Amino acid sequence: MEKILDYIKAGKPVNARAELLEMNVVDIATLLEDVDRDDLVILFRILPKDTAAEVFSYLTKVDRAHIIESLTDKEISGIIDKLFMDDTVDFIEEMPANIVKKVLKNTDDDTRKMINSLLSYPDDSAGSIMTTEFVDIKKEMTVMDAIAHIRKTGVDKETIDTLYVIDSNRKLEGIVPIRKILLSDENLLIEDIMDTSFVYIYTLDDQEDVASMFKKYDYFSMPVTDSENRLVGIITIDDILDIIEEENEEDFAKMNALAPSDEEYLDSSVYSLAKQRIMWLLILMISATFTGIIIRQYESVLSSVVILASFIPMLMDTGGNSGSQSSTLIIRGLALGELEIADYPKILWKEFRVSIVVGLVLAFINFLRIYLLERVDFIVSLTVCISLFATVVLAKVVGGMLPLIAKKFKLDPAIMAAPLVTTIVDTFALMVYFSTASLLMGL
Amino acid sequence: MEKILDYIKAGKPVNARAELLEMNVVDIATLLEDVDRDDLVILFRILPKDTAAEVFSYLTKVDRAHIIESLTDKEISGIIDKLFMDDTVDFIEEMPANIVKKVLKNTDDDTRKMINSLLSYPDDSAGSIMTTEFVDIKKEMTVMDAIAHIRKTGVDKETIDTLYVIDSNRKLEGIVPIRKILLSDENLLIEDIMDTSFVYIYTLDDQEDVASMFKKYDYFSMPVTDSENRLVGIITIDDILDIIEEENEEDFAKMNALAPSDEEYLDSSVYSLAKQRIMWLLILMISATFTGIIIRQYESVLSSVVILASFIPMLMDTGGNSGSQSSTLIIRGLALGELEIADYPKILWKEFRVSIVVGLVLAFINFLRIYLLERVDFIVSLTVCISLFATVVLAKVVGGMLPLIAKKFKLDPAIMAAPLVTTIVDTFALMVYFSTASLLMGL
Repeated sequence: MEKILDYIKAGKPVNARAELLEMNVVDIATLLEDVDRDDLVILFRILPKDTAAEVFSYLTKVDRAHIIESLTDKEISGIIDKLFMDDTVDFIEEMPANIVKKVLKNTDDDTRKMINSLLSYPDDSAGSIMTTEFVDIKKEMTVMDAIAHIRKTGVDKETIDTLYVIDSNRKLEGIVPIRKILLSDENLLIEDIMDTSFVYIYTLDDQEDVASMFKKYDYFSMPVTDSENRLVGIITIDDILDIIEEENEEDFAKMNALAPSDEEYLDSSVYSLAKQRIMWLLILMISATFTGIIIRQYESVLSSVVILASFIPMLMDTGGNSGSQSSTLIIRGLALGELEIADYPKILWKEFRVSIVVGLVLAFINFLRIYLLERVDFIVSLTVCISLFATVVLAKVVGGMLPLIAKKFKLDPAIMAAPLVTTIVDTFALMVYFSTASLLMGL
Repeated sequence: MEKILDYIKAGKPVNARAELLEMNVVDIATLLEDVDRDDLVILFRILPKDTAAEVFSYLTKVDRAHIIESLTDKEISGIIDKLFMDDTVDFIEEMPANIVKKVLKNTDDDTRKMINSLLSYPDDSAGSIMTTEFVDIKKEMTVMDAIAHIRKTGVDKETIDTLYVIDSNRKLEGIVPIRKILLSDENLLIEDIMDTSFVYIYTLDDQEDVASMFKKYDYFSMPVTDSENRLVGIITIDDILDIIEEENEEDFAKMNALAPSDEEYLDSSVYSLAKQRIMWLLILMISATFTGIIIRQYESVLSSVVILASFIPMLMDTGGNSGSQSSTLIIRGLALGELEIADYPKILWKEFRVSIVVGLVLAFINFLRIYLLERVDFIVSLTVCISLFATVVLAKVVGGMLPLIAKKFKLDPAIMAAPLVTTIVDTFALMVYFSTASLLMGL
């Protein structure tokens, strides 16, 4: 790093460039993130166009904006030409208006039209993540023709691992992996070697479903067609990795009462972190009013047997944890496509039986602990353990069912996780606890 | 489906086979899962060898075992020959001894040696997920030589998207994407077009680190070398999707007090589901003893102002949720490599400031609600809100620090999630609450 900057200072950009080109593009991008703004532009400018475009697609939002501001119109159009269409669109989506204007001014009509049409796909749809650089061939071509065609058009394509066979109306008829091209006789017709049992994606499919298809079929890239089966783009598996990670982060956030955010922690301001957290905390805090109401109703019970209060936290925590175990399993099962709403009778029955086992074990051990070890009164111990058992059963059944109910009402099951389940289970747990107490103690 | 089985019954296997071959291999596997055992073997047998091997790698454990039991030695050796080495090893790892014996008996010496060496890599290491079917070339070859070499050896390779350049000692010298081969002049030397700034993986690297490298570098496959830089295998990105999903599921499980399990929910027995849940519930239930001890210490305060008890659930839930928000962000930041242990001063300072903002907002709204709306006594309202503020600050700081401490002690940060943080925060919250109450009320 030092060395490269020294070359620049010494007026030896050729040496600096040679050093940089020893590195992988991702590593060059990481390195550029660490230098100051002026050096960033200098180093970026000495890169060959191809490498520059690749490095550009790995830079941070701020660095990209800064580079576009500093480059000439000609340089910008050079970079955009070399960028893959999906990277261009991603980049344009996150830039402020003045930068977008500068970029669009420097693209040709076709590219601009393509960018606008890609920008018009709904967020999270297959159309919004696909790229338009793929190699298409005709079934009448021979293998030799296809190779010639790749040699002529393949340079700018994101991947040539799979070739797409289309008819004169751009309808997708088959796919041919490049290995089949390489391993087949040169005079064979594409028609004879193409695979017609291919799987494809619609432009409006949800990106989460697209990710599931990649997981299911183990493809490295998949074709995207419009409603009339015309091939309009392809999606490559490296973009799917990001989507899977994004969807998982969203679930982690929702399941822990956080508003999802795509900023990295250290880059987020205190204000935006606080905003991400306050809304759910407020909603849950206010719903906890119910637990207060129940305790106040049983104030007389509590004031005669104050020790009852000392088991409230244990009951609540165990109930909350039991419920969150069940809701986590069901939420993830739904997310991974292993469970369906229609499975609810099986889930209900399974959670019920599991909760009986778990409830009995916990209640029994707890009874031993508080009655024998802590020498708590027998009736109180019994009250605590009966309530514990009932709470665990209830928590597991409620925790198992709520995500399914959310899904049924087209809500994201992930919101029915620990925090919300805990708040709901708490209320019931306290009702069971105090009514058992008043019954057993005749209060 | 019906149609295919009808063809079989009518003694027309050729038609059944034609129908099957219209489908994608993954879909054939899904279909075979639904038929009964005898039909499974019949349908499997009519598939061409290549397709059969591919379908085999998508079948369930039980179906695979059943097929191996039913096939002749010759048929088995045909299937194993066509299977990729990583799929063979995965399959052998999960089979009972008698099946493994039958499989190994039907492989040649070289394959058996290779299987045994792959089986010896530690679980979760790069070596255990790599495959050994790749195309290697020499730098002295011309592009034309390389194409001839691929045509000769490429048929059985898992991917030919990237060719690996090795020297006479099998040391990795460079990589060449297949597109570069196709787009270069036939007489160029591999040496002149190969990329030497490639990234590679060691056999003993952890699979989680391997997944991060794939995410960082956007490669579809990466070379794996031994400690002397000799190329021993490659890892393909489709296997990385499974690993990412697996690691995420582990985090979801740990963060919700579940022992990780790789069984699907509906396939798990009540006993194994209960086992997966009881241990953590027990640990957390018993740690909740502390909260009980604290409440009992303040029994006199509580018996004079019983209404204090009615705010315990709200305080505990809000503390728990605040803490779990922070720990989730830090745990995920660590898992995705966005945060390091060394960032702890920044994290501490950020969590502190965020908690002040969040704490003030929550305490203020809560005061309005209980003092003005529920008309709770002023001193009690004040006690509740001071404790709420202190609990939020403490929960966020503890929730932010615990995952870092776990990591420091080489534990998985994910265990420091909601359930454990809640249990710890509860204890402090109650201490603050009752000592504030005794102070303000002079009890």
